[in-house]
Amino acid sequence: MKSQYPIAFAAALLTSAVSAQTFQRLGTCPTLGCVFPPDQADFLAGQFFDVRLEVHAPQNGSEAIGLPPDESFTFTIAKGDEEGVPAAEYFQIDEPKLENWTFSWFEDLFAKDAKTPSVVDVRAKAYRRVALYEAGEYTATLTYNNGSTTKATWLVRDLEEERKTKNIVLFIGDGMTTNMITAARLIGHKTINGKYQSKMQLDQFPVLGHQMTHSIDSFITDSANSASALYTGHKSTVNCLGVYADSSKDPFDDPKVETIAELFHRLTGGHVGIVSTAYIADATPAALTAHTRDRSQYPHVIDSFLNGNTNYTWTNWTGPDVLFGGGAENFYPSALGGETYKDRDYYLEFADKGYQVIWNKTALDAASTSERALGIFTVSNMAKWLDRNVYKTNLNQSLSPSGDETPALDQPGLKEMTLKALEILHERSGDKGFFLMSEAASIDKMMHVLDYDRALGELLELDDTVKATINQLKEWGCDKETLVLVTADHGHGFDVMGSVDTAYLAAQNVDRKKRSAVGTYQNSGLSQYINTGNLTYTDSNFPSNWDPRYTLFQGLMADPDRRETWTVRKHGPREPAVETEEDSDDYVVNPEDGEGGILLNGTLPVSNDQGVHSLTDVPVFAVGPCQEKFGGVYSSIDIFFGMAECFGLARGKAE
Amino acid sequence: MKSQYPIAFAAALLTSAVSAQTFQRLGTCPTLGCVFPPDQADFLAGQFFDVRLEVHAPQNGSEAIGLPPDESFTFTIAKGDEEGVPAAEYFQIDEPKLENWTFSWFEDLFAKDAKTPSVVDVRAKAYRRVALYEAGEYTATLTYNNGSTTKATWLVRDLEEERKTKNIVLFIGDGMTTNMITAARLIGHKTINGKYQSKMQLDQFPVLGHQMTHSIDSFITDSANSASALYTGHKSTVNCLGVYADSSKDPFDDPKVETIAELFHRLTGGHVGIVSTAYIADATPAALTAHTRDRSQYPHVIDSFLNGNTNYTWTNWTGPDVLFGGGAENFYPSALGGETYKDRDYYLEFADKGYQVIWNKTALDAASTSERALGIFTVSNMAKWLDRNVYKTNLNQSLSPSGDETPALDQPGLKEMTLKALEILHERSGDKGFFLMSEAASIDKMMHVLDYDRALGELLELDDTVKATINQLKEWGCDKETLVLVTADHGHGFDVMGSVDTAYLAAQNVDRKKRSAVGTYQNSGLSQYINTGNLTYTDSNFPSNWDPRYTLFQGLMADPDRRETWTVRKHGPREPAVETEEDSDDYVVNPEDGEGGILLNGTLPVSNDQGVHSLTDVPVFAVGPCQEKFGGVYSSIDIFFGMAECFGLARGKAE
Repeated sequence: MKSQYPIAFAAALLTSAVSAQTFQRLGTCPTLGCVFPPDQADFLAGQFFDVRLEVHAPQNGSEAIGLPPDESFTFTIAKGDEEGVPAAEYFQIDEPKLENWTFSWFEDLFAKDAKTPSVVDVRAKAYRRVALYEAGEYTATLTYNNGSTTKATWLVRDLEEERKTKNIVLFIGDGMTTNMITAARLIGHKTINGKYQSKMQLDQFPVLGHQMTHSIDSFITDSANSASALYTGHKSTVNCLGVYADSSKDPFDDPKVETIAELFHRLTGGHVGIVSTAYIADATPAALTAHTRDRSQYPHVIDSFLNGNTNYTWTNWTGPDVLFGGGAENFYPSALGGETYKDRDYYLEFADKGYQVIWNKTALDAASTSERALGIFTVSNMAKWLDRNVYKTNLNQSLSPSGDETPALDQPGLKEMTLKALEILHERSGDKGFFLMSEAASIDKMMHVLDYDRALGELLELDDTVKATINQLKEWGCDKETLVLVTADHGHGFDVMGSVDTAYLAAQNVDRKKRSAVGTYQNSGLSQYINTGNLTYTDSNFPSNWDPRYTLFQGLMADPDRRETWTVRKHGPREPAVETEEDSDDYVVNPEDGEGGILLNGTLPVSNDQGVHSLTDVPVFAVGPCQEKFGGVYSSIDIFFGMAECFGLARGKAE
Repeated sequence: MKSQYPIAFAAALLTSAVSAQTFQRLGTCPTLGCVFPPDQADFLAGQFFDVRLEVHAPQNGSEAIGLPPDESFTFTIAKGDEEGVPAAEYFQIDEPKLENWTFSWFEDLFAKDAKTPSVVDVRAKAYRRVALYEAGEYTATLTYNNGSTTKATWLVRDLEEERKTKNIVLFIGDGMTTNMITAARLIGHKTINGKYQSKMQLDQFPVLGHQMTHSIDSFITDSANSASALYTGHKSTVNCLGVYADSSKDPFDDPKVETIAELFHRLTGGHVGIVSTAYIADATPAALTAHTRDRSQYPHVIDSFLNGNTNYTWTNWTGPDVLFGGGAENFYPSALGGETYKDRDYYLEFADKGYQVIWNKTALDAASTSERALGIFTVSNMAKWLDRNVYKTNLNQSLSPSGDETPALDQPGLKEMTLKALEILHERSGDKGFFLMSEAASIDKMMHVLDYDRALGELLELDDTVKATINQLKEWGCDKETLVLVTADHGHGFDVMGSVDTAYLAAQNVDRKKRSAVGTYQNSGLSQYINTGNLTYTDSNFPSNWDPRYTLFQGLMADPDRRETWTVRKHGPREPAVETEEDSDDYVVNPEDGEGGILLNGTLPVSNDQGVHSLTDVPVFAVGPCQEKFGGVYSSIDIFFGMAECFGLARGKAE
């Protein structure tokens, strides 16, 4: 019988088979026995999580070893050097039922071209809503296939339970790198002979750190996975919100981990605010309350903001005090063209639970600071700072949050949303304190479409928002009891290499000659965004000219096909590439973008119409209680543990 | 008469005329009256500097106002609110003689194409080797053209004179960015489920900062200018070493500023060491002792290491204890093909002053630690870590430091040079202490030629060197009295966006299909540089496989034409582009580089055969006495002031 193959032989096969890279059978599970949370996971003492076990029986391909699916695997947990205890006994819960499914994958691009998938038969179990309380190292052992084992070393970090801060404000500049901050500073702040005459707020933070953003099973992350790492202390897989990815088809059965918002709310009764310039079901806000391996489950995300996780018994959650952003299409029902959970009207759902429902800046300004508030200001992503302040006719689109297809002309910016959120949280939270996450989402969205001007505008708006926040906290006398963090979730490979004489570029007829318009080193000169023009705004430290003759020679390393003019797009966000024909997945230069520019072939697969995320560590700026925990270089998960320790959320025993 | 034009009219012309960007009449001098050091300059109390004054009379072009050159300009200096005093009186020196010259420039690229230069007639003076001792603000006023003024506000920083550290080791990773550190970590250190199993030494520093690298008159810097900022506290112009750039033809008459090495040596008798993997006359080492607006004055640079500045009375300088690097061609005379100052043999010059002269690693290892040492290990730049350790046959070139055209096979690396330098400085400096600058030069040089593998190898070698340095200091018990700084002088726009299946790329025939080999996000997978292969070295934490099937999808934003395969160049450093014909200044893809790769047109002017520097702030890592001065975000000049204060080099009065 095949099941009698010697163990050593099977083990040898397992180690040699794992060459998958572009595609993986299942991230974090290189062997045929899978434990989630996997080896090297860190936990906050008392943090809820699910355990998922899988045993894989590859039916074909390089990993097939001819064993049938093992249905009698066992799983134990051992604290330190102690003897392993069966998990159900350890967690004092019933032994979960056995599950089974199959899935398929491609071992590499050649297999994909040849349409030869590898099929895997799976047996699985899930232990739901457990926790580890005692600090220290644990060994979780899955035993399967007649004695093969997968061991996971888990660490419950030994953190002080004493609370050190009353409030935390976490700003996330989505996709924001140090390179982008440098560029934004150059266009928004004046230098005289190399000395800046004003400072970005970020440049005034006393503590600077770098965090590593990589995923658990790939070195480039998306915003779902990276937000989950920041909020839960668990790195995961691309597209995951608050779960590890298992191999089942169901996007809601993956093993969950409790988030900072859930922990803070459950353990302290603290108040939570969520603000973003994206559609609010987008990954960075969603990861605070949603638990799914598929970030595009928007209706589920919106429901989770209000009702928490309802698929399984989970944490206590009664909704945030503040939820501000875009994405109206997931609030109104299908009759208006929306898509919501069970086709409900979520404006009504929120109103029924006591939320003020706000649709524009005027109403936001007038809103009560003593009641909870839902502010949804547009369909899709919110308008960019550049369009709200300079190219205002671009707001004339059918994006009203009501769903009536009128324009959403009266949109607030990140600053207005954040300041209102602070007022509500400050008034409502009393001595419980608050946690506010505020995201400048379109730094990322505009870098994706190579619209550097709009991206840098969003970054300057973030800096302006941080400044206003710190000033507000000081005015209230709350700055000593509020930790303010500003960081990002990942980067884009962006930098500035010089200047472009756009008049000279436009006057040339040949691409190779157009390139002479680029000035590097001494020919880069000074920023003409500040030194020319006379635009003024309510807020200071934005360019006085977005359209100077000499612009920045800037860009990304990885692009779709595109044409570069290095000039501001006055008619709205850039669209560098378009499909050759409907649904062809073959993108070429957009004939309506960058007319007269230099034609550049991309390096990304031609199925890409935009840029992608990059590897670089991203900066962390900290001020307030516990600021010293955020200096130096560390993993993204350390942001969670730093915030959790500062809030005093570790629990050495069950309540 | 033209000289009777009303002042207000002339002033109005001056402000409107300054639109120059790609070219400037003279950096830091937008008006027609020039003061160097210019407005906004900061000084260390007691630091020597020269003052240069120029009055410009444009003969044609947009700035011509028909005034003859003013020969009766005056210059005063005022402390705080005090009355201005003529400079010669203030500094108690003779009034310098009037100088005159003309120069020409192009106002923009159109003028350059049309060959219509603008000519400027100049009258000038220079006040040599002066200093300001009292902390506070000064106003330097140049009055010219019948009452026009150029005012410079100068600040002498108020720094403690008490010495806080005995030694400083300053590591410079030339061109090193946070993005590159992230990439090097990925190929040199192993992760398990997203958790690194070893740390870079840089990741273990307690204090992290960012410094802004921009030039005084352009936002992109070169290594001369940026090194000068780090060493003198004065930002300057591209190509300048320890001077502000004036408009005269003479590369040696520009106004100087005293460097950290000169100050430390003059004021404390401290010992200095200089180590680089570049040719040692290159900008980063040169800026410690040379003063010229033209970094390519290599013979002068080598002489300055030994004899200091000899054109004008300057600072006391008697040579470093240690000078290690490449660049033998500026040590042996023209008979052997070298180029030296007055055709002298600088091996003999150094030997005459008591230096051991060392030509290879064997001799370096055996060298005495009680005598001064000159170690020159190759013609040109030193061999790269990758060629010394993996592709060793590439060392077979006619580069012996003797000049005899045999190969330089026995070269040390940055670590061996740095450790020997430390031993010599430690033994010789006694209670005087030492300053060591150690440069990983070829991070920059290999990024310039898009040779990412070699660049990251150099970065890992830097990290390994920093580790060995800290261990050595601890072993001696010197770690508490030695400030260790690691930083860069500028960046390159580099990042990693995913992985490349090089087998799949090579198997495709069409560029657009080759692009499918790129894997982003979840398809980036894990680093195969550590997880495959079995290369081992004396040093840990380098890749175990430099040539895996799945490589990094990495690169620069600004490139010459090139072909990308994203594979290691086994036959030596990369040469991406070549001239279409001799001296054509028209570079196209090198047919011998990247065969089978994706053809990519560049964005840089076609006269570029390599990449260029970028804007991004660069990281600063600090440990030891005064480490707290280096956290947060600041200007590159603050590195100088931080080191100077830590060494206690401010002097409130003349000695």
